[in-house]
Amino acid sequence: MGNHVTFKPYEITVEVADGENLLRAALMAGVHINASCGGEGVCGKCKVLLESGELTSTRSGLLSDEEFDLGYRQACQSFVHGDVVIRIPPESLLDRRTLTRRRGGVGLRPSPIDLETLKSTGLYNPAFQKKFVALPPPSLSDNACDLGRLEQGLARQHGLDSLAADFFMLRHLAQVMRQDNFRVTATLDFAQRRSRKPRVVQVEPGDTSQRHYAIAIDVGTTTVWVQILDLAAGKIIGTGADYNSQMSYGDDVITRMVFSQKEQGLQKLQRSVAATINQVMHRVLKKHQLPVTEISHITVAANTTMTHLFYGIDPKYIRLAPYTPAVCHPPPVRARDLGLEVPDHVFIYAVSSVSSYVGGDIVAGVLASGIYKDPKLTLFIDIGTNGEIVIGNQQWLACAACSAGPAFEGGGIKFGMRAASGAIEEVSLNPETYEPMIITIDMVKPKGICGSGLINILAAMMEADVISPNGKFRDDLNTPRIRLGDEGREFVLAMAPDTQSGQDITLSEGDIDNLMRAKGAMFAGYVTLLENVGLKLEDLEQVILAGAFGNFINIDNAIAIGLLPDLPRESYHYVGNASLQGASLLAFSRDLLEEERRVADMMTNFELSETPGFMDQYIAALFLPHTKMEYFPSVSERLKAAKD
Amino acid sequence: MGNHVTFKPYEITVEVADGENLLRAALMAGVHINASCGGEGVCGKCKVLLESGELTSTRSGLLSDEEFDLGYRQACQSFVHGDVVIRIPPESLLDRRTLTRRRGGVGLRPSPIDLETLKSTGLYNPAFQKKFVALPPPSLSDNACDLGRLEQGLARQHGLDSLAADFFMLRHLAQVMRQDNFRVTATLDFAQRRSRKPRVVQVEPGDTSQRHYAIAIDVGTTTVWVQILDLAAGKIIGTGADYNSQMSYGDDVITRMVFSQKEQGLQKLQRSVAATINQVMHRVLKKHQLPVTEISHITVAANTTMTHLFYGIDPKYIRLAPYTPAVCHPPPVRARDLGLEVPDHVFIYAVSSVSSYVGGDIVAGVLASGIYKDPKLTLFIDIGTNGEIVIGNQQWLACAACSAGPAFEGGGIKFGMRAASGAIEEVSLNPETYEPMIITIDMVKPKGICGSGLINILAAMMEADVISPNGKFRDDLNTPRIRLGDEGREFVLAMAPDTQSGQDITLSEGDIDNLMRAKGAMFAGYVTLLENVGLKLEDLEQVILAGAFGNFINIDNAIAIGLLPDLPRESYHYVGNASLQGASLLAFSRDLLEEERRVADMMTNFELSETPGFMDQYIAALFLPHTKMEYFPSVSERLKAAKD
Repeated sequence: MGNHVTFKPYEITVEVADGENLLRAALMAGVHINASCGGEGVCGKCKVLLESGELTSTRSGLLSDEEFDLGYRQACQSFVHGDVVIRIPPESLLDRRTLTRRRGGVGLRPSPIDLETLKSTGLYNPAFQKKFVALPPPSLSDNACDLGRLEQGLARQHGLDSLAADFFMLRHLAQVMRQDNFRVTATLDFAQRRSRKPRVVQVEPGDTSQRHYAIAIDVGTTTVWVQILDLAAGKIIGTGADYNSQMSYGDDVITRMVFSQKEQGLQKLQRSVAATINQVMHRVLKKHQLPVTEISHITVAANTTMTHLFYGIDPKYIRLAPYTPAVCHPPPVRARDLGLEVPDHVFIYAVSSVSSYVGGDIVAGVLASGIYKDPKLTLFIDIGTNGEIVIGNQQWLACAACSAGPAFEGGGIKFGMRAASGAIEEVSLNPETYEPMIITIDMVKPKGICGSGLINILAAMMEADVISPNGKFRDDLNTPRIRLGDEGREFVLAMAPDTQSGQDITLSEGDIDNLMRAKGAMFAGYVTLLENVGLKLEDLEQVILAGAFGNFINIDNAIAIGLLPDLPRESYHYVGNASLQGASLLAFSRDLLEEERRVADMMTNFELSETPGFMDQYIAALFLPHTKMEYFPSVSERLKAAKD
Repeated sequence: MGNHVTFKPYEITVEVADGENLLRAALMAGVHINASCGGEGVCGKCKVLLESGELTSTRSGLLSDEEFDLGYRQACQSFVHGDVVIRIPPESLLDRRTLTRRRGGVGLRPSPIDLETLKSTGLYNPAFQKKFVALPPPSLSDNACDLGRLEQGLARQHGLDSLAADFFMLRHLAQVMRQDNFRVTATLDFAQRRSRKPRVVQVEPGDTSQRHYAIAIDVGTTTVWVQILDLAAGKIIGTGADYNSQMSYGDDVITRMVFSQKEQGLQKLQRSVAATINQVMHRVLKKHQLPVTEISHITVAANTTMTHLFYGIDPKYIRLAPYTPAVCHPPPVRARDLGLEVPDHVFIYAVSSVSSYVGGDIVAGVLASGIYKDPKLTLFIDIGTNGEIVIGNQQWLACAACSAGPAFEGGGIKFGMRAASGAIEEVSLNPETYEPMIITIDMVKPKGICGSGLINILAAMMEADVISPNGKFRDDLNTPRIRLGDEGREFVLAMAPDTQSGQDITLSEGDIDNLMRAKGAMFAGYVTLLENVGLKLEDLEQVILAGAFGNFINIDNAIAIGLLPDLPRESYHYVGNASLQGASLLAFSRDLLEEERRVADMMTNFELSETPGFMDQYIAALFLPHTKMEYFPSVSERLKAAKD
């Protein structure tokens, strides 16, 4: 930080990181600048005047020499490297001062439980440990079997009694023991409950105790994340990801479950996700020059359907009422038996699920977020097609899945798209001209709208008073941007010349309807959960946003449209890919690995469709932000301020 | 029984089973009848006179009508079905009355611990049990996962708490649960130590609790035995056996271990024995119309090398001083991982070994014989190439392997052969004419001599005073049966016309040397073990003979040659294939399954070559029966009686 950008005539100053894009800096400051091409620099609308200081700017043909010499710059092509003063030119100026200042950074704090916390609280204690022993070589007066000799050494030198042994490591034990004259390192599995015996799963010649790795995997419906963990040093080595190749059999869990019922369908899906994991895993291992033989175990978090498919367990009844998974607490399984290309001794430990639609990814998130041992009443929320909600504290946890639909992932939205290059991410609207300021991912010409962009557009439309609380465009606006399209009335966000496809990018009332249903389902979900345990929205003490989507969400805007509750912004936390984080923590902590089942069992599942009050809450939530404005006091103020 | 056969002129009567062969009856009575062709009926030498009663006899051209009408019969072609009086004709008569009466039946008593004993002592308690549960079908208000529902049912209906689940059964759990409306039978694994949770390994629709089977296997170096056990009814269903197909890679454990060190050798040996097991198992299952899916688990007993090879564990250092196996307590292993064609959930439990040459077959035998909880001081002995000896009682057990060599299995003996059709099994010699009475297996023309036959021949030669205590033929006998052959002096047991090959069958002084070394090693072994624990031969209270060979051994003759100690015959027990029996008992009894490791650990192993006194004992034992005749008082008497 340290670079001050002052926007005139508003006299608003923001502090930004070195190299920050000037258009983004304006957005952070809540300053509207017309911008149509997403930041690619081809519309020329985001011209600003540099009054003092220096900017690094790319100069395009859209600025004349005269303009450049006078200090005009394209905001989207300019980067801040020191204090600057910028004047917004008349065409971008708003009469009614500025837009509400965006506070995108609010609450984006890391997980309350992370690797450092584990270490400082004594929970850093991987379930797999390596122990070096120097053993006396056998003689005729002491010719116990090799395994017995190893066990004796571990007992004497490390106080480890009464061990079990994994079968596969025995196959080469004799050779390994003799490779460095009976100096060996044993990998021990303490993952089973404490009453059980630790298991010797691997033996290597010499002292390899400093080379000890594990893998954590988040098997998402869309994306598979693989993280390599250094158990000896207690750190994350690297992370890789790729699309789950099951995608070719269906976009979401429902279509995959349907496919699993076809001839060989389950096997195909199982092999497909195993192939993705193998590919990502070997790529990351290779990048960090780690041999796969040094992996001791794998932890996996995934939603209930993905867990079933990865395990090759028939998921048929997850989809059919009354929605019963085959298994919620999957037993450890030899990774090889699931087709993973790892040594024989490697077992997979999957995080427990709670129900068909509250899976191991959410339980992992609850573990990573630490809410199961937090005294504060917390709302944990993962926004997605099956938006999952957990409410509770150290004493109780309630959870539910909302059939929010895929709107926030771009599904059912005409120009909806993934959060990829060209997706409209940030939007503000000039409340008088309705001219938009659009910033896309990678600042290229717009191609569509991603989930966080949809929330931001909806909030911008509310603020610019373009839509009514019922989600319909106001009738009394005289602007060509609102028009009757093929699918009803729509708002033109980007005109054809400024888009990648060369066609207008619009948002229709139908699209808005879908978004309202999605946010309404989420809101109704957590209010219903709260009511069913005798609590109210205002009792919530903190909100934790999980999931990749949570990463990019603008909390103020998500509150504005009624998706998130109107709580003080400092009560919001963001934990990113909490599922992967939970899986990693499990690999780092035997205590967490032992606790995960207890935590899953602690989470009382509500089937919302069967829960009293849910439908009423849902219908009441199909407004922007809500039929009961008293739920959203800060939104009332914001909208009022925008109108003033 | 009930048929009395009286032999005149000796006036000896024996009671025999209905249908007993008359030549065998004579043998049992200790009555010599010349017989050269092994019982095939082609030499015509075993003619006897039927004085009263009836015999079922096959009449051959070797008896004239006159002879037959007079009552002459070929003993080997006659079968007893009522009381008879038989007169031995002059040519078979002995001057010095009869030979010592053979007491082949002495001590041939069943194992002190068997299935019935298990049941009567409360030890019948298979580690795998089937439990039927009728579960409430799921509803929206109770949509726990299928496994959870099953666990709840098992807890409520059978008091089984805190279960674990085998991974593979989960794959089809959802379908199985719904096939008979949530009425299912679970197979539970209680094989782990009591402190662990039982595991659900299999679930079947409906009530299948009465269909529950296990398999016990004895993997011998030569022969693989497979037994199908009915765990619901507590009985043995059937047994099958075949040669271990590893035989094609080497006859004994040493040659197999050598082969295992070749490229892919270990894998070939592993697959080979798995193939034999699959073949025998499926044959027996098919015979009894049992589907392999109803097998819950497999128990295996094998010597240390066979266990390593079956598990695919490198056995290299078993063979090399100081003779260390890789593992003595093999962990349970999924049968599929060893190539057995059984369902995924089937695990193999192998009996522990004590050392490189005292293996799981011996530990299984110790379990089956119950000596580990018997107050009597017991000698347990398995005669073979690596003759194993166990001495002890409920408080301590000492064991050793003797490198006896393969003589008792026919190895190193010119006409040695397996105990198969045509093997000379029973022999007596006319002490004046040296004319033999030979009975072969299946009573066909002789082909060679099996192990028990070698012992009987040696004893007969001692009794007929053909050999001196040093194992050499007496010089002063005027008989063409003793001659100088290619390999030194030899005794002609069967002349060319009476043999299958058309060549003489002989036993040479070299052969006798090998036999004396083999029996000497065994004797020296147990005397040394006794001495090393401060005990003497006469302290022994019982002797248990294990192994297929023990089945056929004539105890009097084995004592006569100095192989077995000269104890009262009633202290001898015979337990047959104690290894298979032990494996079966383990499948029937969780207590034994839990105890086997403790029993193996209780057995202190002695490396005889390193044990003080062994070499002296060995050299002293290279006599017939022994240099110290005071060890064998009954043999002295027998030889004296024979001479009188």
